[in-house]
Amino acid sequence: MSNERYLRGWEQLMQVDGEGGERVIESLKDIAPDLGKYVVEFAFGDIYARKGLDLKQRQLVTISALTTQGGCEPQLNVHINAALNVGLSSNEIIEAIMHCVPYTGFPRVLNAVFVAKQVFEERTHQQ
Amino acid sequence: MSNERYLRGWEQLMQVDGEGGERVIESLKDIAPDLGKYVVEFAFGDIYARKGLDLKQRQLVTISALTTQGGCEPQLNVHINAALNVGLSSNEIIEAIMHCVPYTGFPRVLNAVFVAKQVFEERTHQQ
Amino acid sequence: MSNERYLRGWEQLMQVDGEGGERVIESLKDIAPDLGKYVVEFAFGDIYARKGLDLKQRQLVTISALTTQGGCEPQLNVHINAALNVGLSSNEIIEAIMHCVPYTGFPRVLNAVFVAKQVFEERTHQQ
Amino acid sequence: MSNERYLRGWEQLMQVDGEGGERVIESLKDIAPDLGKYVVEFAFGDIYARKGLDLKQRQLVTISALTTQGGCEPQLNVHINAALNVGLSSNEIIEAIMHCVPYTGFPRVLNAVFVAKQVFEERTHQQ
Amino acid sequence: MSNERYLRGWEQLMQVDGEGGERVIESLKDIAPDLGKYVVEFAFGDIYARKGLDLKQRQLVTISALTTQGGCEPQLNVHINAALNVGLSSNEIIEAIMHCVPYTGFPRVLNAVFVAKQVFEERTHQQ
Amino acid sequence: MSNERYLRGWEQLMQVDGEGGERVIESLKDIAPDLGKYVVEFAFGDIYARKGLDLKQRQLVTISALTTQGGCEPQLNVHINAALNVGLSSNEIIEAIMHCVPYTGFPRVLNAVFVAKQVFEERTHQQ
Repeated sequence: MSNERYLRGWEQLMQVDGEGGERVIESLKDIAPDLGKYVVEFAFGDIYARKGLDLKQRQLVTISALTTQGGCEPQLNVHINAALNVGLSSNEIIEAIMHCVPYTGFPRVLNAVFVAKQVFEERTHQQ
Repeated sequence: MSNERYLRGWEQLMQVDGEGGERVIESLKDIAPDLGKYVVEFAFGDIYARKGLDLKQRQLVTISALTTQGGCEPQLNVHINAALNVGLSSNEIIEAIMHCVPYTGFPRVLNAVFVAKQVFEERTHQQ
Repeated sequence: MSNERYLRGWEQLMQVDGEGGERVIESLKDIAPDLGKYVVEFAFGDIYARKGLDLKQRQLVTISALTTQGGCEPQLNVHINAALNVGLSSNEIIEAIMHCVPYTGFPRVLNAVFVAKQVFEERTHQQ
Repeated sequence: MSNERYLRGWEQLMQVDGEGGERVIESLKDIAPDLGKYVVEFAFGDIYARKGLDLKQRQLVTISALTTQGGCEPQLNVHINAALNVGLSSNEIIEAIMHCVPYTGFPRVLNAVFVAKQVFEERTHQQ
Repeated sequence: MSNERYLRGWEQLMQVDGEGGERVIESLKDIAPDLGKYVVEFAFGDIYARKGLDLKQRQLVTISALTTQGGCEPQLNVHINAALNVGLSSNEIIEAIMHCVPYTGFPRVLNAVFVAKQVFEERTHQQ
Repeated sequence: MSNERYLRGWEQLMQVDGEGGERVIESLKDIAPDLGKYVVEFAFGDIYARKGLDLKQRQLVTISALTTQGGCEPQLNVHINAALNVGLSSNEIIEAIMHCVPYTGFPRVLNAVFVAKQVFEERTHQQ
């Protein structure tokens, strides 16, 4: 795909999600390629590329939404990596997840924190 | 109540939620006063008072969590007011809610935006 | 309807939900009568009539599930009345709702407590 | 807006949601106009315009998703009207909502059925 | 069990879920046999056996509800198989899941699509 | 930590969750130690230590909330063990989970029952 929204979206995806996001789009190619197209064009080309909030603020929102949803651990893995990619510290990420406790309770927050623990360990071993 | 966590929490509550939060605690006094105590002591005295994220960042998280939960329009009303109180602009609030679309879909985001619309109108009329 | 499961269910419905439950079944008659039939036969005839837990324990489960779901305030109204009908005290009902805070957060618990407040006021005025 | 995706989306929106959808987009103009743009371009221009499922099948999916989400009664109102617009009968709509009982329980199904009841009454009075 | 609702339900279960559903009922026998009985009698004997929607339409509803709920991947596996059993194509199944994006966001849809991918691969290897 | 709420909470945690809870707090020490502190102080020191409901009633509420939430299987594992610890029978636990079917549907109840099956098997092998 090479239209304008896709190109803008792909640029955002690489800047935010990096390889994690690229792998998700790749894994969709043989099952639902248009779904990957919409992730790139809409989630990244339309939403992430917007002004008004910077990428660190957007990652706080994404992480909070995924933590609160529950059952989205694969996406939390990609987006906790993304949060580190855009410059949030591991401490800020943990704080954001913990801040969800009064709003969604401890179980979903615990499950998100354990994903963060795994992400931080994976990134440490890659260095 | 005058213990240290309650006092710290009440100070945070007034700084963040202001009158909206005070009304919630007041409305609990004849039905579940300890619940109000826990909101003040835990949500505000323990969580909101933490370092690591500033109040504007914490309001982005809260608004995202409430938008994603759905069915929490009363709390969204309090916390959109709170977001303005701590210095987020109405534009930043709308951007945060809109950023939730790829993660929780349009319906919950629409319902949150309509709460924001109502809050902004109420605050305009109060001026 | 007069089959055995319906009769057993109707007896449970009247014992637990009382008039509140009767009104729900009635309100379904012109839009989805079979839905009302399933509520009576399955929810009450099969599930509520089971041994193993008594009706007070079953109401604790129902209230917890409805509180956690969110957005089920009409059903919470019926079932908080039902909890009082089967002998739980208003204090036990509030305690059960509050016990959900660590598991589903404050917003859903607050919304459930406000339904309880309304139910207790309505029942007081009926006396 | 007059780009190709918006035009295709607006055509789908009018065919499916009709006036109900137009009102939603209109109500967003002073608070989050881009959100309305995304509903038209993405929800309708990208998703609803796809081949593979016809509009009646798509409305079954939408109604099921909204019923299961809970707390999306405003959107259910628009989409139950839409279901009638694209040729589903009121009976098929009620059957779809009822089919959700084993998957999301009675409360969310009851709340959706009561929205349907209201929609059918409104449409009867308009004739 | 051999009562009328159970027999009707078992027939529906075999027609829709096939072996996948049989395995679920079997796995419940030593832990909660009555739960299996209710799945057969109520979900299949009462709901699936209803007129008004055909089995392909009912599978669209079930798949949409399970996708939107999140965290129900085991049940999605059974019901995506069931969708193929009753004559929906793999393309129609993917379209139904994708149609949920505007209503529940990308994460839950991605998780459902990956279950579909696995189901299609398993069925290919069985041929 | 040795303040009064923490000590009271730790005592409750050991009485209710036992080793399962201790392992959760331990696993948080290197990633989010304050989160573990809040679980002990607030969930157990404030909520579980309350009068009004006994520990068996509280476990019925917790299990119902976790079943209804979905996606909280790790926490259900800890709390089904806890339910046995405080004196609920395995039959009462299964009844409570099954009682959630009319309120949250079969999928979440099935997923909770399979966690119970695993817990009961683990405890049998430990004897």
